[in-house]
Amino acid sequence: MTPTEIENTLHFHLTMLLPHHAIRAVYEYAVLPGGKLFRPNLVWSVLADLNPNLCEKSKKEKTSPHALLASSVEFHHSYTLIHDDLPCMDDDSMRRGKPCTHIAFGQWQALLAGDGLLNLSYQLLAKSNNPRTLELIKFFSWALGPKGLIQGQVLDLSHEMTKSFENTLRTHELKTARLIQVAILGSAILAEDKNRQKEKKLWRFSRLLGINFQLIDDLSELAEGDLSSHEQDVNPWLHHPEKTLTETLTALKSFNKLSSELRLTNTNKIISEYYQKMLTILTDNQKTIEGHLNNLDILPVILLMNSFS
Amino acid sequence: MTPTEIENTLHFHLTMLLPHHAIRAVYEYAVLPGGKLFRPNLVWSVLADLNPNLCEKSKKEKTSPHALLASSVEFHHSYTLIHDDLPCMDDDSMRRGKPCTHIAFGQWQALLAGDGLLNLSYQLLAKSNNPRTLELIKFFSWALGPKGLIQGQVLDLSHEMTKSFENTLRTHELKTARLIQVAILGSAILAEDKNRQKEKKLWRFSRLLGINFQLIDDLSELAEGDLSSHEQDVNPWLHHPEKTLTETLTALKSFNKLSSELRLTNTNKIISEYYQKMLTILTDNQKTIEGHLNNLDILPVILLMNSFS
Repeated sequence: MTPTEIENTLHFHLTMLLPHHAIRAVYEYAVLPGGKLFRPNLVWSVLADLNPNLCEKSKKEKTSPHALLASSVEFHHSYTLIHDDLPCMDDDSMRRGKPCTHIAFGQWQALLAGDGLLNLSYQLLAKSNNPRTLELIKFFSWALGPKGLIQGQVLDLSHEMTKSFENTLRTHELKTARLIQVAILGSAILAEDKNRQKEKKLWRFSRLLGINFQLIDDLSELAEGDLSSHEQDVNPWLHHPEKTLTETLTALKSFNKLSSELRLTNTNKIISEYYQKMLTILTDNQKTIEGHLNNLDILPVILLMNSFS
Repeated sequence: MTPTEIENTLHFHLTMLLPHHAIRAVYEYAVLPGGKLFRPNLVWSVLADLNPNLCEKSKKEKTSPHALLASSVEFHHSYTLIHDDLPCMDDDSMRRGKPCTHIAFGQWQALLAGDGLLNLSYQLLAKSNNPRTLELIKFFSWALGPKGLIQGQVLDLSHEMTKSFENTLRTHELKTARLIQVAILGSAILAEDKNRQKEKKLWRFSRLLGINFQLIDDLSELAEGDLSSHEQDVNPWLHHPEKTLTETLTALKSFNKLSSELRLTNTNKIISEYYQKMLTILTDNQKTIEGHLNNLDILPVILLMNSFS
């Protein structure tokens, strides 16, 4: 699916599920235009890898189980961003190059649009005509609920995240990896019959991807000469450079190994494109980044990312 | 189910589904001790009316479909209360005789506990071992999502609610009735095989109950000699006394008629208990209430409520 096709489906689902009322603009503003659309892209790539025939059929139908899941994970992602940006949370004012939803429309509008998108994420899943739908909703609600994504937000906002490297990793796992796991494993659940061994591997694969995604993102944040005080507070590379480097290398190695075992060609392509973008930032700013880290050598990270295929 | 049994089940579900972490106290504070527990009570009473054998079995098992639904509607109700009380929403400081969750713990804690309870309400439903579970989740998410309960909050906070009596009624239907409808019709969905005619009647019955519930609650708010400026702004009895009286009488009559057709003995008992409490307030303060309404005679409301059985 192209970004435009994914966005068209998001727009279609919003049109179907929102009331005819001015509030519609708030929801649409928060969701569209989309960001990287990394999570819906993963839903489609995993389907293409596991069940290409079903993928061809599903792409043609905006209410196919996978089209519903792709929109659902993106709506859920959007709700977390709206709530995260609120003054009582991270108090951000810009998101994806435009004012945050609460800046553009007001706080109660943003809060309620977030609640609405959270509900919509379940409403879409429940429309899915697939024998494993209930199993998916169980997994989805566990992974993104109070023991999952939301606990990641709790660890972040309570500043427990920065108290130890272990806490940082746990926060990355819950706050970042869980939604990526829902996209990948959720897509597998709707693509095939139950296969415990394979699903266990996909669980580990998606967990490592989520953690790498966040650790590499943290590293790329150091490309700026001047770091914000928030970045200085939370970036694990600044507080635990050696441990973070070791963990990143270990995770990248395990991930590359699992990835070649699973042979997810389409999924690897999406990850590879993401890595290439990040590699440009890392190699262009290697000196600056290493400067923030007392000249810690980040070349091993660059080489491992480069070796991914 | 006694209030204690319902609260024990709520506590059991929280214990199972929350992380071992200080944040647990925030969730528990927001849910327990419960308020009137009107919605979980309706789940159980409707089951007792429609399928007494299943009711006996379900009561013994904290993870029976109806036990899960009863907790789910109460968790969902709690999330709406937490978010409604936030400074960017209604900005309240007291709820059920104690400080609101955001006053007791902080705003981000309250916001995230609300998001967590919203997720939990779906997590509980998805655990239900009942052939109509997916149908229930579809109805639940539609009734409480952007076209349902949340749109009621939007109409309230945007002050559109008070612009006409029709808007007030629509807001009461979405913001108050929908959750009551989910309790009643949701319980029926899990209690019996599909029966369109009966479910249509239960839909109308629960809609009228929700609207009456709110209109009588609005009337009882006028028992105070001095009204808050918020009450003066939003109470439909003050702005449209004649229309509100006519609507209340019409809704009470239709409701009493439907109620005797449906013969929901246990459910009627719960409603009757609620009416008796409200009747005490209305009769004890009839003069004060009528004083706020230019001596509009509210005796017909009292008589119709009294005639309910």
